[in-house]
Amino acid sequence: MRCPFFQNLETLGCNETLPLHEVIEQLAFNEQGLISVIAQDAETKEVLMLAWMNQTALQQTLDTRRMTYWSRSRNEIWVKGATSGNYQTLEAMYFDCDGDAVLCLVKQQGAACHTERKNCFYIEAQKLTNCAVVTTASP
Amino acid sequence: MRCPFFQNLETLGCNETLPLHEVIEQLAFNEQGLISVIAQDAETKEVLMLAWMNQTALQQTLDTRRMTYWSRSRNEIWVKGATSGNYQTLEAMYFDCDGDAVLCLVKQQGAACHTERKNCFYIEAQKLTNCAVVTTASP
Repeated sequence: MRCPFFQNLETLGCNETLPLHEVIEQLAFNEQGLISVIAQDAETKEVLMLAWMNQTALQQTLDTRRMTYWSRSRNEIWVKGATSGNYQTLEAMYFDCDGDAVLCLVKQQGAACHTERKNCFYIEAQKLTNCAVVTTASP
Repeated sequence: MRCPFFQNLETLGCNETLPLHEVIEQLAFNEQGLISVIAQDAETKEVLMLAWMNQTALQQTLDTRRMTYWSRSRNEIWVKGATSGNYQTLEAMYFDCDGDAVLCLVKQQGAACHTERKNCFYIEAQKLTNCAVVTTASP
């Protein structure tokens, strides 16, 4: 899935800049117009969740600093925390080498997971025992 | 995208276990049979890359402890590092609350990115200046 635009960036040196809107326009949104977004706690470095943005949600996130996703189940723009109060404030946004994934460092208000757990990745695969173990209790 | 199987897990307490193969069978692989996988450095907590696995790659990763993805560009199983030597050793694997994303803590040999950068997320969006900045030089 190599995009010529991002291939051309591979040789850039550190601190080289390019217009932000050009990069956003070239992102590899999928056939549903979505791109994967990883939200990582800026302080603890914990990976909180994986969700999706369309171009509007991504631009709104940059403009408001409030993490704004595309809800695939509700089919609508979703400001994280709008109903729960568990907002995420954007601290930094990165694009990957292929332009098909976004990493956001965020300040998380309350729990990231809809189960009220701190993060969404609470089921651990344990190959030795062939078990999956819940690592955090539901509150 | 709530799956009844994963909804039933939401109320489980900490350390509760269930058969690993059942969880894997219930994962929400997409219409191409793939699931998003985040590779995070187990030591530094740096997010290294986002890639994809099918069920075979996921099982092979658990069996061999070598991160094994599905290459969407080459349309084949891809043992990360098989050509570059930059293997990733699996230290822990987690599934998220919706069963549609996987987080792997890995020990990274060499660079994670095909550009020989340490990680793939080296283009930072800087809203204030409307620039995208390369944060790591290509070697």
